[in-house]
Amino acid sequence: MKKIAFIGGGSFGTALSMVLGDKGYEITIWDRKEEVVEEINKSSKNSLYLKECKLPEKVKATLKIEEALKDAEMVVIAVPSHAVRSVCKNISNYIANGTIITSVAKGIEQGSLKRMSEIIDEEVPQSISVILSGPSHAEEVALKMPTTLVVTSKNRETALMVQDIFMTPNLRIYTNDDIIGVEVGGAVKNIIAFSAGVLDGMGYGDNAKAALMTRGMSEIVRVGEKLGGKQETFYGLTGMGDLIVTCTSMHSRNRRAGILLAKGYSEQEACNEIGMVVEGIKACRAFHELSEKMNVSMPITNCLYRVLEGKLKPEEATTELMTREKKSEF
Amino acid sequence: MKKIAFIGGGSFGTALSMVLGDKGYEITIWDRKEEVVEEINKSSKNSLYLKECKLPEKVKATLKIEEALKDAEMVVIAVPSHAVRSVCKNISNYIANGTIITSVAKGIEQGSLKRMSEIIDEEVPQSISVILSGPSHAEEVALKMPTTLVVTSKNRETALMVQDIFMTPNLRIYTNDDIIGVEVGGAVKNIIAFSAGVLDGMGYGDNAKAALMTRGMSEIVRVGEKLGGKQETFYGLTGMGDLIVTCTSMHSRNRRAGILLAKGYSEQEACNEIGMVVEGIKACRAFHELSEKMNVSMPITNCLYRVLEGKLKPEEATTELMTREKKSEF
Repeated sequence: MKKIAFIGGGSFGTALSMVLGDKGYEITIWDRKEEVVEEINKSSKNSLYLKECKLPEKVKATLKIEEALKDAEMVVIAVPSHAVRSVCKNISNYIANGTIITSVAKGIEQGSLKRMSEIIDEEVPQSISVILSGPSHAEEVALKMPTTLVVTSKNRETALMVQDIFMTPNLRIYTNDDIIGVEVGGAVKNIIAFSAGVLDGMGYGDNAKAALMTRGMSEIVRVGEKLGGKQETFYGLTGMGDLIVTCTSMHSRNRRAGILLAKGYSEQEACNEIGMVVEGIKACRAFHELSEKMNVSMPITNCLYRVLEGKLKPEEATTELMTREKKSEF
Repeated sequence: MKKIAFIGGGSFGTALSMVLGDKGYEITIWDRKEEVVEEINKSSKNSLYLKECKLPEKVKATLKIEEALKDAEMVVIAVPSHAVRSVCKNISNYIANGTIITSVAKGIEQGSLKRMSEIIDEEVPQSISVILSGPSHAEEVALKMPTTLVVTSKNRETALMVQDIFMTPNLRIYTNDDIIGVEVGGAVKNIIAFSAGVLDGMGYGDNAKAALMTRGMSEIVRVGEKLGGKQETFYGLTGMGDLIVTCTSMHSRNRRAGILLAKGYSEQEACNEIGMVVEGIKACRAFHELSEKMNVSMPITNCLYRVLEGKLKPEEATTELMTREKKSEF
């Protein structure tokens, strides 16, 4: 394999393109923002999304999606989860049989409640879909700081191939056959991170946040098992690991959005301030719907949904979660 | 119940005494430090261990252990784990039949490899031993910030009674019948927090730490199940919850000690700088011994042990943990 296309020149797409560019692959990033494409091509930088990083020479960018896809043997989709279907529709005609499509988007689709790999399989049926997920702030991947990721696919051979493509001494890739578990864990953890941000914004401490994250893990496992994922996956890198990194770092947009919400910003104001998509908000609405349809208890998601809808204040949500009847832990 | 004795006026003992003093219990703290006892009695403060906290009037202190124990219906042991046996030997003669002894120490005994509740049962067989554990920095408990804890005992009635004694709107107490799981999780998490500190001290990022914590959880579960604890306990508040709070907060001595070790301090220098007992170091030695005896794989504990023994440099340990053969997550 020589040529790889990236759809989306945001922070994570750019960071991964740097990893692959350093390994000698020819990378073309498609992005719709002119200034991003121009800066990558002119000065090997993407200062809008990844400050102070120098991209390898092998990484180029284009505004024309068919140019990025030409001769690409693998396509990496690195756009927000709500954009994955339209992107897939746009690229499908240019995708040859057996092309690998690796998605790094974390979320499920509102309305259809489908996972990203399901959307890829529907829209680009001639491709082989792969999911890459795990605890990985783009900023640290770009700086070659040690990071672990998990790759999963219905096609085991392809998963092993993608493991090889991305693996470096600083980026350790594991395989895992449980696609559902990897995708559901990656989506729900954003809801918990968002609610951890709300706690932080209200001035609560580490004790409360650790409790929230622990109860949040139960919520991930409960809904995830119901959807067909495995418990061990949820307690692995793409569930618990990613939850930890998202809940405890200021890099996390989900957490920062929660902090703003607690400080009185509306949902729209918080999203404007962050300036990028807040996956936790979209996931909260999707999983709220799903939890009602499937009759599975998701108390944190449920409280957060009502906060987003203006039906519950953040402090009321905390009281509701903290002051239930005394009981046994399990 | 009216009168409760605290053995140990450190940060966590003092914080819990404040909770119970506020609820109207008469508290007498025994401590061996004259200045601590004097300050508590004279100005209702313990500035050595809990800065800027005002203790309730109901909390008094004494240098005479028998004075603290007189008429006490419950004794709370809040000393470092290595001191629990000698403290139990000292108090045993003054303990009436059926007195509750609640320990908050987290660790296992070097040499005997016994848990705290086993030590209490051996040394004060006329008492009913109880363990109180969970994600709880003393500083936050003292400030009445929302916190969750778990109480466990062989005697279920007593566990329910202790749940009632400690529960407040800000301090939520769960019961859990799995004593082994609660005690082992609480001890091993200090090792992982200590190693997370080493990573932090070496300048690694959030991605690496989340990976370490996730693999650390596997280590807790593996040794904990072998010792007879339940998986759900390890993934609950006293395992995962406490791991999170200890790994991510600067309140944690274990984490701070790891940071110092990575910066080139010797074990002794790091402990001197912290000025309090670093349970993670003691637990690392104990669980290293235990893992060899029981033939259970504890790679993080093992690496850390060799760093403490001067046989491995922190950077070599990281390389060893990060660059093994590529493989499947499970």
